Amino acid sequence: MIGNQKKHEKNTVKLEQLTWKLGYCVEKNQLPDAFIPSVVPGAVQLDIAREANYPDYNYSDNYKLFRWMEDVYYTYRTHFEKPIINAGEKLWFVSKGIDFQFEIVFNNELIHAQEGMYASVELDLTPYLQEINILEVKIMPAPKRHAYPEDKTQASHVTKPAVSYGWDWHPRLIPLGIWDETYIEIRNESYVNDVFVDYELSEDFSVAYITIHAKATLTKDYAYRWELKDAQDKTVVSLEGLMSPMLDETITFTSPTLWWPHDHGVPYLYDSCFQLVGSDGEIIQSVKSKIGFRRVKLVMNEGAWDEPATFPKTRSVPPAQIELNGRRIFGKGTNWVNPEIFPGVITQKRYKELLDIVVETNFNIVRTWGGSIINKASFFELCDEMGIMVWQEFPLSCNNYPDNTNYLALLEFEARAIISRIRKHPSLILWCGGNELFNSWSGMTDQSLALRLLNALCYELDRKTPFIPTSPLYGIAHGNYLFNWKGQEVFDMINNSHHTAYAETGMPGISPLETLKSIIPPSQLFPPRAGTAWEDHHAFNAWDENMETWLCRDILDEYLGHAESLEELVFQSQLLQSEGYKAVFEGARRKKPYCSMVLNWCFNEPWPTAANNSLVTYPSVLKPAVAAVRDACRPMCASAVIHKFVWSKNELFTTDLWFLNDTLQELSGLNLIVSLQAGDQDLRISEWQIPDIKPNQHVAGPTITCMLPLWQVKLFKLILVVQENAAYNAEYTLIYRTDKT
Amino acid sequence: MIGNQKKHEKNTVKLEQLTWKLGYCVEKNQLPDAFIPSVVPGAVQLDIAREANYPDYNYSDNYKLFRWMEDVYYTYRTHFEKPIINAGEKLWFVSKGIDFQFEIVFNNELIHAQEGMYASVELDLTPYLQEINILEVKIMPAPKRHAYPEDKTQASHVTKPAVSYGWDWHPRLIPLGIWDETYIEIRNESYVNDVFVDYELSEDFSVAYITIHAKATLTKDYAYRWELKDAQDKTVVSLEGLMSPMLDETITFTSPTLWWPHDHGVPYLYDSCFQLVGSDGEIIQSVKSKIGFRRVKLVMNEGAWDEPATFPKTRSVPPAQIELNGRRIFGKGTNWVNPEIFPGVITQKRYKELLDIVVETNFNIVRTWGGSIINKASFFELCDEMGIMVWQEFPLSCNNYPDNTNYLALLEFEARAIISRIRKHPSLILWCGGNELFNSWSGMTDQSLALRLLNALCYELDRKTPFIPTSPLYGIAHGNYLFNWKGQEVFDMINNSHHTAYAETGMPGISPLETLKSIIPPSQLFPPRAGTAWEDHHAFNAWDENMETWLCRDILDEYLGHAESLEELVFQSQLLQSEGYKAVFEGARRKKPYCSMVLNWCFNEPWPTAANNSLVTYPSVLKPAVAAVRDACRPMCASAVIHKFVWSKNELFTTDLWFLNDTLQELSGLNLIVSLQAGDQDLRISEWQIPDIKPNQHVAGPTITCMLPLWQVKLFKLILVVQENAAYNAEYTLIYRTDKT
Repeated sequence: MIGNQKKHEKNTVKLEQLTWKLGYCVEKNQLPDAFIPSVVPGAVQLDIAREANYPDYNYSDNYKLFRWMEDVYYTYRTHFEKPIINAGEKLWFVSKGIDFQFEIVFNNELIHAQEGMYASVELDLTPYLQEINILEVKIMPAPKRHAYPEDKTQASHVTKPAVSYGWDWHPRLIPLGIWDETYIEIRNESYVNDVFVDYELSEDFSVAYITIHAKATLTKDYAYRWELKDAQDKTVVSLEGLMSPMLDETITFTSPTLWWPHDHGVPYLYDSCFQLVGSDGEIIQSVKSKIGFRRVKLVMNEGAWDEPATFPKTRSVPPAQIELNGRRIFGKGTNWVNPEIFPGVITQKRYKELLDIVVETNFNIVRTWGGSIINKASFFELCDEMGIMVWQEFPLSCNNYPDNTNYLALLEFEARAIISRIRKHPSLILWCGGNELFNSWSGMTDQSLALRLLNALCYELDRKTPFIPTSPLYGIAHGNYLFNWKGQEVFDMINNSHHTAYAETGMPGISPLETLKSIIPPSQLFPPRAGTAWEDHHAFNAWDENMETWLCRDILDEYLGHAESLEELVFQSQLLQSEGYKAVFEGARRKKPYCSMVLNWCFNEPWPTAANNSLVTYPSVLKPAVAAVRDACRPMCASAVIHKFVWSKNELFTTDLWFLNDTLQELSGLNLIVSLQAGDQDLRISEWQIPDIKPNQHVAGPTITCMLPLWQVKLFKLILVVQENAAYNAEYTLIYRTDKT
Repeated sequence: MIGNQKKHEKNTVKLEQLTWKLGYCVEKNQLPDAFIPSVVPGAVQLDIAREANYPDYNYSDNYKLFRWMEDVYYTYRTHFEKPIINAGEKLWFVSKGIDFQFEIVFNNELIHAQEGMYASVELDLTPYLQEINILEVKIMPAPKRHAYPEDKTQASHVTKPAVSYGWDWHPRLIPLGIWDETYIEIRNESYVNDVFVDYELSEDFSVAYITIHAKATLTKDYAYRWELKDAQDKTVVSLEGLMSPMLDETITFTSPTLWWPHDHGVPYLYDSCFQLVGSDGEIIQSVKSKIGFRRVKLVMNEGAWDEPATFPKTRSVPPAQIELNGRRIFGKGTNWVNPEIFPGVITQKRYKELLDIVVETNFNIVRTWGGSIINKASFFELCDEMGIMVWQEFPLSCNNYPDNTNYLALLEFEARAIISRIRKHPSLILWCGGNELFNSWSGMTDQSLALRLLNALCYELDRKTPFIPTSPLYGIAHGNYLFNWKGQEVFDMINNSHHTAYAETGMPGISPLETLKSIIPPSQLFPPRAGTAWEDHHAFNAWDENMETWLCRDILDEYLGHAESLEELVFQSQLLQSEGYKAVFEGARRKKPYCSMVLNWCFNEPWPTAANNSLVTYPSVLKPAVAAVRDACRPMCASAVIHKFVWSKNELFTTDLWFLNDTLQELSGLNLIVSLQAGDQDLRISEWQIPDIKPNQHVAGPTITCMLPLWQVKLFKLILVVQENAAYNAEYTLIYRTDKT
């Protein structure tokens, strides 16, 4: 049963290709009737579906067939011959993630029990080894705080992603099983368990004061050697000495090249290599990691100290401005959710294809939302490399997580693992307790012990990274999620609100036609109706039952007339999503510096929705809004304030011109031509000699007005052309009516 | 030199009446030229002033004579003969508080160095003992973060009260020296260092799950015995067993009588006695304390979850509602500042005379403000006994306390001592990081490490008590501090604002005539002028230079005409203070349940001011506003909304009637007569049959209007008479004018 014994690092032999089988039963102490092949990492549901030829859960309402799998007991089983273990070596079982409550049984002996999917498991199997060994991982049913209601509140006592219990864009499908890298390996008895290369930058960023924390089990005297290499593989600083079980060594590194998000510089990474060295110089073990040097703070938004201005006086808002390496950075980004329903199938490649889109959309930050999983190591490694800032939430979302001892102990156990794993990544710029916890639908407050605990743990383990208990905080905005809410258009919402950050702002769009056809039976495709696969895929009754979310056909009808075909409906929805998102991103940007961030809700989705606020349909299909947002987030571009969507014949059209600049560049001599385009008619209405553009500052230009003529069109465009600099051009689609409505 | 050896507890002998002397010098390593008698506890300034016959620092600007004492080095010295120390005993030096940075030198050997006035000192002197022993406490100059500006910012790196560096009601006088109980004592080698009787109450308060934490140094096997006695000295629960160095024993106590604030029940206390017991049953040591059983939470204010109502949506406000033993309690109270400039002279008696006034004023809570000292043990003991809730702040106020390592280490050292000392008191209902830290004049934010550290420490050591990082928080109000601010009257401020709590609301009043005469030279008494002792005592340029604070003569002139005598001026000021405070307390109470607390700024003062927001002039002189506030805070009373202060002939006078009830009592059949009284004329204007009054609920009554007749008065009164229940009557003084202004 043993695969090839591959030398990964000196004296650490990973024994690969354990062959797992899976069985299940309805009572805890039953033996499964049968075992089926299992793919690890994966999920119990995927194994069963594969073996029993379940239909695709992405299609129609097939996901409902998986419901029974929440409530049974699972046993993963593998067996292997005793490998050759030399004197001074041990055999370890390692799993980076098992979901959720489980026991490890080895040769019929219970050797470990755990609740929690983020704390990795490392078990010394040596004392129990026999010639033929049976290793079992027994998974308990999905945790449920109560039987009813059958919704996210069932997960309000655990660290499991609440989203899998059902959300307005997620079917109820609760993964269970081994979901991250899992193997057995031979280790030297002396073993370095953990290396954390910490640092503090001098005020002027010219010096990094590095501290190497290493924990080890040592059976004899060893030395250590540590090297830092730059991107050209040149050693820039090194250190060596006697190893100890708790090593804390400091060294000064001058002139570090700093790590920057991709739109502000190079996400420069160094290679750290820590080695355990034997008495005759042989390398016992190597621990490698990437290091990026940066200092991150949340600082007060410009102008925010001036508020409140009058008495009785409450507090000023909490800071929401990212300051990276001393530079105030406007955050343009998105909310990242789990890219798959079953995290066990997520690969580095899957992360990469989505993160490539993040960068191409001119986003510099992702908020990894508290309702979904804490991502695997490769996610953070990619964000480090690609220069994407990560706002990382703990797994709490829209629930009232209790003050009780059991939950607090579980949360502490998991949070320590999460913080220790992620804190080393330069892309990590913010810890956040979770999503929308200080709003009525959650009911937690600043007094909730879970959030006080998370603050305390982040202070203990990673105090150099900012921490906020939840989002929204006072001054930070979530929502709205509609083009028009009770008569308030998105243009009005963004132009007339005053927030330090827009951390969630949504705009629903129907998925592309091909996606719809792949998830909705042909007979249900048009017209969309509640109670069909459209509803299973969130087009109806997903969020606000009164608003037909997320299809929002009432809004589409009102603006664009009743669509007569699916193609027309998709076009309508995607037009509103594109123009809405464009308005939100540009509108928030224009509020710089008081406003410091705008993130749309949401970037991706873990299964193909029929309609959703997402920019990217599952798996990686771009909605047209991506292009709109990419333009709206260009570091430099022209921009116009859209005051409303519908304009009429003989109405005075009005807009305000801007030129946006988030770069350190200066520009001068630009000339902007403003025109309206209706069909093939092009009406030049104004010209703006843009004043000198200073680094990291926008320029507000004139207000333009123009009487709208009689056109035979339903849509027209406002077009901004920057002469000889087409890269800065902008355009907006608007509705034209000959009658006032 | 040794006083009587008095047996305090079995085998613990406190050696009292050490005679201390004090010397000083300008360089650290100099020897003082001379030593003068010293009173311990006290302050170096008081010793010097006493010896050198300094004039009273309370008078005129005499406090300025003490300025040089900030910057010299002090040596306290005492000597004593070696006491009889038996085998198995040791001699300890104990000080509960030395202010601020100091060294302890014993027989010319440096045995301890410390920065921090709240962490007590316990030193084993035995190894250094000689026949004649010299004990010295060397005090460094007052800590100053910088030379200029010479103000509170000089204390922004330490835990010393910022107020002593100068405030709008406090002269610059920075105490130094031994400020709390200090002695040497003989202890058994086996010694219980700390006993903390912790508990958790069952959901229905019927059971207390008690945990006894005791730390001890043990040289042989001992037993322990613990008893809890009720107020009738009857043992209600007890426990005994083998003692260990870290004892953690739990026991269940059923039907505890709960502790309540004085206006909601009995502040019931039990006596805890923990004894270390020898092998033949002899009591080695007894540690006694009081225990009060209560559960305290900060819960969401009623109605606060409904806000914000619209999108974009920020968070709901943090909770400010005290829930004690499951009951929502409206906090009526005051801001408590240091009762003396020199905390070393504060006695239990001094606390008692002020706390008696707190209770008599119908206050149930004091906010012990972060700019002043952390009070001595007797303060909390009295609050426990008298049923006064304590909102306890850490020593941070109106400064930007830094993120640096030195300060954080000092703060942690001091905060651990503070929390461990105070957490056992049932009167403690809230920890708060400090005063006004999230406002522009301080410049700290939620990201400030000092506040994250305090959250972590309170979570670790006392998570059952709520913690807030500062006041005001979002939704909580501070200010205003004037009867009329830029045209906004106090009536308008309180009637038209919307806050969860009014944690500081001020109203200046001139001190009583006798006090003024005792601090201001006769030639300067009238008229008050800036640049005289009036200004030294905060009547001018104390807070807002444009507002003549705190005398506010411009406001008095406008409302009541230019006073021609000191007596008239004092009357005017005290009238506005009384009516203003009455309006604020009743106004905030009427906003229950959304509003949950009102505290005036401030209760007391540490020296006699000429004018101040205080209710009580130093030392314990009641201003007339005390009576007004006492009436306004009655658990049950009639109340009228005052819309403005000045009314004119032929104007339609209007008011809204209320009956306030913070008790659990029900009442019915009350009848309220409303009249206006002008001189000897009494105009009955309305009658209100008050509906049934329900427990803990106010009743809003009708709006009353009445055309004002021609009167020959400058003031008139609105009088509410509750027939046959004079205890609920209320009255308000208003200004009458025959001409409209």
